[in-house]
Amino acid sequence: MKSAAMKKEKLPGKPLGPIPEGYEAIDGELAIGGQKASLLAQQAGETPLFVYSRQVLHDTMDRLRAAMPDRLHINYAIKANPHADVLHFMADLVDGYDIASAGELAILKEVGIDPARVSFAGPGKRDAELEAAIAAGVTLNLESEGEARRALDIAARLAVTPRLAIRVNPDFDMKGSGMKMGGGAKPFGVDAERVPALATEIIAAGAEWRGLHIYTGSQALSAEAIIETQGNVLALADTIAREIGQPLPKLNMGGGFGIPYFPGDEPLDIEAIGAALEERFADLPDTLADAHLCIELGRYLVGLAGVYLCRVVDKKVSHGETYLVTDGGLHHQLAASGNFGTVIRRNYPAAIANRFEAPPEEVASIVGCLCTPLDRLTDKGFLPRAEVGDLVAIFCAGAYGATASPAQFLGQGPAREVLV
Amino acid sequence: MKSAAMKKEKLPGKPLGPIPEGYEAIDGELAIGGQKASLLAQQAGETPLFVYSRQVLHDTMDRLRAAMPDRLHINYAIKANPHADVLHFMADLVDGYDIASAGELAILKEVGIDPARVSFAGPGKRDAELEAAIAAGVTLNLESEGEARRALDIAARLAVTPRLAIRVNPDFDMKGSGMKMGGGAKPFGVDAERVPALATEIIAAGAEWRGLHIYTGSQALSAEAIIETQGNVLALADTIAREIGQPLPKLNMGGGFGIPYFPGDEPLDIEAIGAALEERFADLPDTLADAHLCIELGRYLVGLAGVYLCRVVDKKVSHGETYLVTDGGLHHQLAASGNFGTVIRRNYPAAIANRFEAPPEEVASIVGCLCTPLDRLTDKGFLPRAEVGDLVAIFCAGAYGATASPAQFLGQGPAREVLV
Repeated sequence: MKSAAMKKEKLPGKPLGPIPEGYEAIDGELAIGGQKASLLAQQAGETPLFVYSRQVLHDTMDRLRAAMPDRLHINYAIKANPHADVLHFMADLVDGYDIASAGELAILKEVGIDPARVSFAGPGKRDAELEAAIAAGVTLNLESEGEARRALDIAARLAVTPRLAIRVNPDFDMKGSGMKMGGGAKPFGVDAERVPALATEIIAAGAEWRGLHIYTGSQALSAEAIIETQGNVLALADTIAREIGQPLPKLNMGGGFGIPYFPGDEPLDIEAIGAALEERFADLPDTLADAHLCIELGRYLVGLAGVYLCRVVDKKVSHGETYLVTDGGLHHQLAASGNFGTVIRRNYPAAIANRFEAPPEEVASIVGCLCTPLDRLTDKGFLPRAEVGDLVAIFCAGAYGATASPAQFLGQGPAREVLV
Repeated sequence: MKSAAMKKEKLPGKPLGPIPEGYEAIDGELAIGGQKASLLAQQAGETPLFVYSRQVLHDTMDRLRAAMPDRLHINYAIKANPHADVLHFMADLVDGYDIASAGELAILKEVGIDPARVSFAGPGKRDAELEAAIAAGVTLNLESEGEARRALDIAARLAVTPRLAIRVNPDFDMKGSGMKMGGGAKPFGVDAERVPALATEIIAAGAEWRGLHIYTGSQALSAEAIIETQGNVLALADTIAREIGQPLPKLNMGGGFGIPYFPGDEPLDIEAIGAALEERFADLPDTLADAHLCIELGRYLVGLAGVYLCRVVDKKVSHGETYLVTDGGLHHQLAASGNFGTVIRRNYPAAIANRFEAPPEEVASIVGCLCTPLDRLTDKGFLPRAEVGDLVAIFCAGAYGATASPAQFLGQGPAREVLV
């Protein structure tokens, strides 16, 4: 809210992304899950620190469940945030899990998740990964004919019936998505027109046929685009099922639900998406009438629930520009620094955590402690006057933060992570 | 050589960067340090694998020493590659070390490097880092007045005479450098006009005055630009020394020596740089006549000495385009994927390691195993026909590879590293 107002007034500096809902002030300080940022930093013993909020995780899932058809299963793509405490907490909230490596399978097993609730997609599955997944009863979303044959060979050797689905490379993508995962040549999945033949081969080989996985893009903020894409996904699944000649047991419709990171971004209208799905689910073709229907979300479920806290260790002025130098940086927040799949750098939502209600007074850039000009968390933000020792909060840090950043860069090491 | 020829013929696909010197073929296979890639992968037990070549490290330093004035000290900025075996090997070749964190200091100590040979630059040094460095006798390149005062306070508390230099934010940058570290407002160093006052304060406080650190940019391939910048650095150091009113004990002239990564890049003419330095050193002003003069290089010393080996786990065709899907990826090679400070993605030098002498026959993109379109190591390279099980080599992997990439992304974990 605050950021939107700031933007309209054309205040100095460059705009910041919108601070997500669910974060309040206590005694003028940012509070996460009812605890003041300064206290959280003190308890952790050291900054930087990722704080994940149970309340925001819970509220996000609540709103999503209310918006989506009861029939729709919601899976968590753990690549977004594989922290053990987050996985534990999400276990009661989601229906299944999507993983992208045997490493992620090992993480889920440690947390005690039943592998039968897990599916595994990823273009470069090694034999050892296929074996671990098949032995555990994980559903494989096969990425190619070659991978299908390797999986069948491994299953035969293990004398296990493998659970196999096919990831489809569709002929369409998701309009407005941050990353396109379909449409034209792609390293992901099997081109749609080759899927029926492969499915027939898999079924004939005696595998447990688990249907299709159709993933078209990520980080979309347009409900309209997602609704249109989901229609295309259902139609393509129907076409493929007809060519195979039997109803689909399962359809993973992909994800793509985005979160607002940048100035001007508006939250996704999930109610509109849910209503459109309800309508479509009421009128499904025979091939999908009894299918297990699911979506897989990562960023959308956990992204807004995380805050990255770092401390100002120096405040300096160079040629009239003010820098808040922190003990954090791109080694924990690569995407926020604009260095991960970004063309034009824009500011994530940020705040001086211990002056959360103070009025903005000065334009300052928040930089990390790394000795590289890439290490900038906020470029020329209009912020309350901050001093050495103050805490900086970077929001939208719940997804693709800790594990999607080069933690060992410049000898820094990983940040702490806590769930509150 | 080979790549340059390929480029001129306008062969299919997108060009690759030039394969560095020092890599030969044995039995048609890429050999690193006299050992075949397939054997190295077998010995390591698993791909992906970083292989660092003693021979290339040694030859690079040899050529550099021959080109540079005897008087010039050459320091290694270990951020480029802090692998313990590399540090051990470099210990006999270089004169000093530059670090960017207390974490890097700990690494050097473990390897047994004398901290008196080390200087520490970086904009966000925490109190604990200053304390560790001062206690060990490391020279601090101070980044601000605030940091200087914290360092003096900590030294007083420890009852140690701190070794202090000032990092200068110069009013010029290095033309054509990949990353500009000077000129205008910067989070690094103290603006040049404020340096004399701070130096006077430090000297008056009884610190061991270690002079200036002037770093202007990195990854420059133009000898002319480096020569011009070094002239500016010497002139600025002289000006500052005159204002301080005493000769400089030491001047770290920075680095910036680049290596050829991309199609069309030509190796830096270090002989021209060395000759220009000889001339200048023969005619130094009084303020620099007795100074300890050094440069600090990271990428230039180790970048070409590393090769990243990964294995093709799938070969697939989508809409007529061929993909070699490997067990490697951007979790080890973020920069090669074009996602680290890059605006326009270009191809690093790459090869099918076990078909190193085979003629190129097909256009293929080499992708990683991560489930993201960002994970592309080579875009549409014209390569020998590769199959599942073949080894891919990505060159220029000796610097900013393993530690500058998000190793934990998607549950993958770090690559192995060996020095041969």
